[in-house]
Parts: sequence; C-alpha cells; structure tokens
Amino acid sequence: MLIQEYFKTRKVILEKALDKYLAPSDEYPQQLHEAMRYSVFSEGKRLRPILFFATYEMLIGRKNINRLERLLSTACALELVHTASLIHDDLPSVDNSRERRGQLSCHIKFGEATAILAGDALITKAIEILTEIKNKNISLNCIQILTKAMSTRGMIGGQAVDILSAKKKININTLRYIHLKKTGALLQAAMELACIIYGAEENTSITLGNFALNLGLAYQIVDDILDEVGSFDILGKEPGGDSRNNKATYPSLIGLEKSKKMAEKLLRDSYNLIKNMKNNDVLIEFVNMIKDRLP
Amino acid sequence: MLIQEYFKTRKVILEKALDKYLAPSDEYPQQLHEAMRYSVFSEGKRLRPILFFATYEMLIGRKNINRLERLLSTACALELVHTASLIHDDLPSVDNSRERRGQLSCHIKFGEATAILAGDALITKAIEILTEIKNKNISLNCIQILTKAMSTRGMIGGQAVDILSAKKKININTLRYIHLKKTGALLQAAMELACIIYGAEENTSITLGNFALNLGLAYQIVDDILDEVGSFDILGKEPGGDSRNNKATYPSLIGLEKSKKMAEKLLRDSYNLIKNMKNNDVLIEFVNMIKDRLP
Repeated sequence: MLIQEYFKTRKVILEKALDKYLAPSDEYPQQLHEAMRYSVFSEGKRLRPILFFATYEMLIGRKNINRLERLLSTACALELVHTASLIHDDLPSVDNSRERRGQLSCHIKFGEATAILAGDALITKAIEILTEIKNKNISLNCIQILTKAMSTRGMIGGQAVDILSAKKKININTLRYIHLKKTGALLQAAMELACIIYGAEENTSITLGNFALNLGLAYQIVDDILDEVGSFDILGKEPGGDSRNNKATYPSLIGLEKSKKMAEKLLRDSYNLIKNMKNNDVLIEFVNMIKDRLP
Repeated sequence: MLIQEYFKTRKVILEKALDKYLAPSDEYPQQLHEAMRYSVFSEGKRLRPILFFATYEMLIGRKNINRLERLLSTACALELVHTASLIHDDLPSVDNSRERRGQLSCHIKFGEATAILAGDALITKAIEILTEIKNKNISLNCIQILTKAMSTRGMIGGQAVDILSAKKKININTLRYIHLKKTGALLQAAMELACIIYGAEENTSITLGNFALNLGLAYQIVDDILDEVGSFDILGKEPGGDSRNNKATYPSLIGLEKSKKMAEKLLRDSYNLIKNMKNNDVLIEFVNMIKDRLP
C-alpha cells in the first residue's frame, strides 16, 4: 500500500469518528459546540492518531482498517487533547497566534472566552470518550497514560516552561525540556496507548515511547531550522515567527549546522530503535517524512 | 456533633489530602505548581467535598471520619475541578475578576498564561487522581460522573451560556439554565459520587441529585438577592457586581419579592426530598445555611 493511501484512509476513519463523538453544532449552547468543531475540523495532519494506528498495526502485523474499529475512541481522544492544547496555545496571553492551519484561530473567530471553554470542553470530552472503552482495565490504563502525558510533568509543563522562557535567555537543556514535554509527551502517549491496547510487553512500550520522544524532538529542531531558512510552502506558516517572538530556537542557541547534525542524529537514533521490528514500514516513513523536510 | 465541628474536621482532612495530591511548589516548573496551590489553598468553603462526605455519611448511617479515608481522592477531584473553573472564570475575557476569596485572582498574581495552564492542569490532575481508586468499576463510574458534570451539557455549558448572555436581554429560563449547569451540575455530581461509592440504589441517587440541583439554584438566587440588598460581610464580596457587569439576575428579571419566594420554595422542595431519610441532619443543615442568608 502506498504511504499516501495509508495516511488518507486512516484520516478518513478518524474524522468520521470525531464527527460522531462531538456534539452537533446546532446543539445548545451552539457557539461552544461550533467552536469545538471549528478547531477539530481545521486541516490537521492527524499525526498523533495516525502514529497510534500505525503502531498498533505494526504490532498486530497487518494493515487492516477494519481492525482499527476498537481503536477509534482512543485515537479521537488523542486528537481532541492535541486540539485543546492548540486552542489554548494560540490565546493572546500565550502565543498570541491569530491564525492556525490557514484559518483564523479559535479565539479570533469565536472570542477568547469561548475559546478557553472550548479547550476545557475538548479535554473533558477526550476523557469521557476513553471511559466508554469496553475493557475496563484498558480504559483506565488509557486514561492514566493520557492524563500523565497532559499533566504538569508532560504537555502542560512544557507549555508552562515555554511561556516563562519567552524573552529570556535560556539554555539548550531548557529548550530540550520544552520540546520533549510540549510535543514529545503526547506522541509518546500515542505509541504507549497502542501498546496497552495490543497488550505489548513493557520493553516494547518503552522502546517505542523513546522512538516517539526522539521523533518529536527531531521534528521541532527541523521546524526551528525551517523557521530560519525555509519558505511559507514548506513550513505551512510564515517563517521567522520565532525570532519575531523572541523565542529561543536550536539555530539561535547552537547554530544552523549543529542543529542539522542534531536532528540527523535523532532521526538515526529513532530509526535504530525500530529497525529490527517487523512490519515497521509506516513508522520508518514517519522518520523519513521529517528527514525530507530538512533543507 | 456540632455542625461547625463537622465542617471543620472534614475541611481539615480534605486539605491534608489536597496537599498530598498536588505537586510541591518547588517542583519544576515552579510557577505553574505554585499557581495551582495558590488557588486551591485560598480560603475556599469546600462545599462540594463536604456535601459529598455528608451524603456518604448519611448513607452509611454514621459520622465517622475514619470511614472517609477511601473517599479522599474523589473529594479532592471535586475541589480541583471547582478550582479550575474559578480560575478560568476569573480571566479578563470571561468574568474579569481581579479578586477571589479576598485575595488576588490567579491570573493577576501569576499572569494570564499561567492561570490558563493552571486550570488545565487542575482538571487533568482531578482525573488522574480518580484513576487511582482501587475498585476499577467505581473508578470508571466516578470519572464518568465527573466528566459529565464538567461537560458542555454541564458546568462548561452553563459557563458558555453565561458568557454569551452578558449584556444581552435573557429570560428566566436561560438564567435558570446557567445556574443549574454552572453551579448545580457539580453539586449534583458530588452527591451522585457518594451514591456510587456507597452503592446506593438508583432512585436514591436521582433524588439526591435533584436535592443538589435545587440547592444550587436556591444558593444562586439568594446570592443574586444579596447582590442587590446585601453588604460585603454577608456576601463575601462587594455587592452590586452583577448590575455593574450588566448581568441578568433573578431580582432584575422577576423582582425582589418573587425572587425571595422562589428561593424559599426551592429550599422547601429540597427539604421535602430528604426529610424522610435517616441521618439527614447535615444535609438539612445545608438547606438551613442558605435559608439563613436570605435577608
């Protein structure tokens, strides 16, 4: 199967499930439900759910879209939490982004107050969905993995350090912390969730979790590099945003060449972690997709 | 046991448990953990956890603080969700309150961005705590009850309608919706959670849930009345805030006398729902506390 086909088909079933789980826009209070749908159905790449599907399909050893039925609730929960974090990140007091994925940010479109509540409601909805998983052990395990990934020791912690570091001189360790937590924690959760549902051995789960952390870090470094030297087309947003926001980036801290080397090493490490696993082709594709963005 | 003694002792064990569950303020990222603790340990009345304890102790037929040990996680989850909602409500784009419980609001003290994240983190923590309940059926049931109470069909929905109604003419049904959802939903959850943990019959849970909804609505009406005619001492905040914010209140919609009658009727209805239950003294006290605030 072509990789484009793989991504496309998984995206379709995910978006169908998201549509099923979210309240319709005409349900009272309409503006809140509209805001939630507006942000969830913007042009997201759905990387977290697709990484989650790909991990599960590697573990069961076949690509079969019908086998993903029971994974849909968890896949949606991942995407809802990610969307919530983007809505809150875009707020004026946080990253102050007026646009996201080529459309107005949630708070520009619906107002700040509704955007704050839409984020809260998406987090709540994500957990609600996970409680519906039939196997209660798995349900609770999934909730534990997701809340750990979101917590002050995960995504929210990374975002907090990011905010507090703005306009300050920070070192490479702090920058690494921000990216590992802000981006890495939820990617790691995506792979750990697949392991829990499949029933993988703990070793496998740890290895794949590390793969996800490396991948997330590499992605961020490449993003930083493109912000320096890239174009709108590659980046999907106006380059130079980080330096305009006085944000520390890898190139600003260690230079362009060293940043490239670091990204390449992380991608190599990621590859090495999974190279001996069977049916690893889609995961390898994730590594290659990031490598291909490197200028 | 004197009722003051009852409230005080339950408050003490709750606050000890909250202290145990929250990360210490010197844990990285410190400012985020500090902000969470600052808001949780402001002078809250802890009404939701105490209502939850009181319901459970009524059901088991004895007041015994040692029997509350296994309820502490759920009691803390209730208080953390309530605190998160207050932090987000106080934000400039929402209710724009600079003070809360006689101290600066979270966003005034720590900045808006940290306040938004502190709210997110408290919601996440509340769920995390509930996953630790040993009995997995009860754990999942509790998470379901709490997320339903928080959802767009509960607390968050009520808050959304409240925001969207500001500076607009609304009718009494909309105002009732706001209060039932914004305040009632979490009080109802407090009593339903006690029922689930005790293993009460569904009928009992429904009756007590309705008791909580009536109580919440009565509380809000009395608050509205005091905002018209009360003093700082009774209200705990500067009176007249609602009319300054152009907020619809019961007195502004149906007049002072009718508002009083409505509150009295709701309190009578609440009393009638529980008057035949054994060991109902603390719950009756909740009704009386609100009655006593009526001018």
